[in-house]
Amino acid sequence: MQEKGLLIVLSGPSGVGKGTVRKAIFSQPDTEFEYSISMTTRTPREGEVNGVDYFFKSREEFEGLIEQDRLLEYAEFVGNYYGTPVDYVRETLDSGKDVFLEIEVKGARQVREKFPEGLFIFLMPPSLHELKNRIVTRGTETDDLITNRLLSAREEIEMMDLYDYIVENDQVELASERIIAIVKAEHCRRERVEHRYKKLLEVE
Amino acid sequence: MQEKGLLIVLSGPSGVGKGTVRKAIFSQPDTEFEYSISMTTRTPREGEVNGVDYFFKSREEFEGLIEQDRLLEYAEFVGNYYGTPVDYVRETLDSGKDVFLEIEVKGARQVREKFPEGLFIFLMPPSLHELKNRIVTRGTETDDLITNRLLSAREEIEMMDLYDYIVENDQVELASERIIAIVKAEHCRRERVEHRYKKLLEVE
Repeated sequence: MQEKGLLIVLSGPSGVGKGTVRKAIFSQPDTEFEYSISMTTRTPREGEVNGVDYFFKSREEFEGLIEQDRLLEYAEFVGNYYGTPVDYVRETLDSGKDVFLEIEVKGARQVREKFPEGLFIFLMPPSLHELKNRIVTRGTETDDLITNRLLSAREEIEMMDLYDYIVENDQVELASERIIAIVKAEHCRRERVEHRYKKLLEVE
Repeated sequence: MQEKGLLIVLSGPSGVGKGTVRKAIFSQPDTEFEYSISMTTRTPREGEVNGVDYFFKSREEFEGLIEQDRLLEYAEFVGNYYGTPVDYVRETLDSGKDVFLEIEVKGARQVREKFPEGLFIFLMPPSLHELKNRIVTRGTETDDLITNRLLSAREEIEMMDLYDYIVENDQVELASERIIAIVKAEHCRRERVEHRYKKLLEVE
């Protein structure tokens, strides 16, 4: 029986740089996982290519897929739908290849429910780290600014609970190396691989 | 407060090549963890240097350390003691550096009891993988040979249960890359790092 691939989900707060990190990962020559292209109803931006950056669909088409339950996750942002077609994900995993999703936090929550065994990576804004340093060193920030930052930090930190790994996006290269290492490591986790060897004993 | 380092334990069946893989890891220029040198009562082999390959001690000295509970783990093989001095490990972890141990499976079991939060990596003989292939393809092996191999495979597989990761030693370079990736990934595991960010909220 073909062993299934790993579902890798990269998410994190909006504006953290998920797309840039994802592109850095896929620009590596030895990246062995498949990128699942998202679907959207928004208008292509200049330079964006259908089937490369996104699958661009009409609202009607998108809502048809929602009704047929053919989206692994979807959400509406600023009047446009974004989602992940489920067929490609399932077929690729079944063929033994890893699938990489780069999605918003709301979508990641939906995927966690359907694929609890997935590998969930939270890309953390370095500002959270900086914030910590500023608070510790009691710098020049006004109290109001610190309070506002703490409020948004609270939201970001609460999002983290869903994830297996937290990767700080301090530098795109470092963040993408960490993610590649995480995928490599996960392929060695005992819970994931021991069944291969335990099966040996069943032969007796 | 200084964050503690990670205790990394590399172990596996005798003869699997733990020492060779450990040397390959430490020959990398950017290896950031500290190797904990084992202590032994056996005679140095040609070329072995005290304080580099092992700390060579007399039986009397070694038994003194056992009595004072100053060994993280120890065992006797073929009439000689082998063990890990605990002071170096604790001091290095407390200073925030990762410590790397390369020890026998019996020792790894003792360390797991004292440091359950350690990172335990089982180096797997590729023969186990080969064995699986041979059984699956029903090759030319005699039944006796297969039965014997299955018996020793059973022992090796039962050892795995204690570990977090299983790394196949198919090629030294590949095995050491996997181990380096595992350590990098572990430094991003949510359970290990979230407290840094959760502390932010306590400041309010």
